[in-house]
Amino acid sequence: MAFLVHHEAFEIPTRGKGTLEITGRVSQALAASKIEEGIATVFVRHTSCSLVIMENADPTARADLHEFFERLVPEDTPWFEHDAEGPDDMPSHIRMVLTRTSETVPVRNGALQLGTWQGIYLFEHRRAPHRREVLVSLVGTTRHGER
Amino acid sequence: MAFLVHHEAFEIPTRGKGTLEITGRVSQALAASKIEEGIATVFVRHTSCSLVIMENADPTARADLHEFFERLVPEDTPWFEHDAEGPDDMPSHIRMVLTRTSETVPVRNGALQLGTWQGIYLFEHRRAPHRREVLVSLVGTTRHGER
Amino acid sequence: MAFLVHHEAFEIPTRGKGTLEITGRVSQALAASKIEEGIATVFVRHTSCSLVIMENADPTARADLHEFFERLVPEDTPWFEHDAEGPDDMPSHIRMVLTRTSETVPVRNGALQLGTWQGIYLFEHRRAPHRREVLVSLVGTTRHGER
Repeated sequence: MAFLVHHEAFEIPTRGKGTLEITGRVSQALAASKIEEGIATVFVRHTSCSLVIMENADPTARADLHEFFERLVPEDTPWFEHDAEGPDDMPSHIRMVLTRTSETVPVRNGALQLGTWQGIYLFEHRRAPHRREVLVSLVGTTRHGER
Repeated sequence: MAFLVHHEAFEIPTRGKGTLEITGRVSQALAASKIEEGIATVFVRHTSCSLVIMENADPTARADLHEFFERLVPEDTPWFEHDAEGPDDMPSHIRMVLTRTSETVPVRNGALQLGTWQGIYLFEHRRAPHRREVLVSLVGTTRHGER
Repeated sequence: MAFLVHHEAFEIPTRGKGTLEITGRVSQALAASKIEEGIATVFVRHTSCSLVIMENADPTARADLHEFFERLVPEDTPWFEHDAEGPDDMPSHIRMVLTRTSETVPVRNGALQLGTWQGIYLFEHRRAPHRREVLVSLVGTTRHGER
């Protein structure tokens, strides 16, 4: 058994606003690490997109989520001062603050311990497509005899 | 001194909407792990309940918190499409996204480093009682000479 | 190479409501730990201030963020019961719940892996100045040959 840290970075191309599932990519990083017991931290390196763990079965749940954030932080808010990059600039920062930049998921027997209906999603808050950097950091122990 | 990972899973029966303190259960998991220095990650395996660290003294603070979320994400929102499980279905997902699925608390000298007024709470967003799975993952070092 | 846990506590004096950058203090704690690869968890020990990772370039982005929270959780909300410490008492708890108490940032090559525009901020929600306790917990490995 060895204690180790394993990082893996990947890019997610987005097509404008919405949620994209990245659970598979996080699981791949975990498999590559050979870690059996530990924790997986997912981190997005941006201030205009974020992370959510969300219902992964019915797409209408995510459509309603998107619409809720459009209404909670509207693009046409008249008093926003920070709008250099357009009407979706300031809403993207606030929607990011209201969701998550990092999320930590337990790892047991080499598997992410997500519940049946949980998926990890990148939440893009900008209208334009972007390439988003995600970092997965795994900390834990490998199987006995492995390194 | 040994570096180790210790997981502990437990179930919390809820009685419908509201917050239930789980600090004691997290502390028990920490004690069982024998970890003295490290971090404790608390994770809920659901998309219709969540975690909050909240004021643990005056119950009116939590009552106001519950009411705030009832009003911020109302059950009678007319444009929600995702309502297969009733009017509390979609609000429960959004309230979960606006709070937390994982929380990481420092561990020093074998104790959770919560502030005086901080308690860890499971936040049930469904009307009906549920059995909720919580996972506590401890990563760190035991005392010198212990294993 | 050694696996280790390093904690560092510091106090941040606030001057009432607003966001204060603490990225430099977190980086100092990381440097003192000598950890090269791992994760850094930042934790605030309070229920009336919180953490956000926010845009660190244009101060108007943070001004708009402050104003958004003033409007989302107004001080003059008539139905709040928890007001023993004044009109900013209950809003401070709700604004804390809507943001973060802990945040975990990857560490590679001895550096926090924040994106270009990301800064770590303490978000004070009370009107009066306070001294706020922040705890940084570093878990990971040092360079080969170091301890």
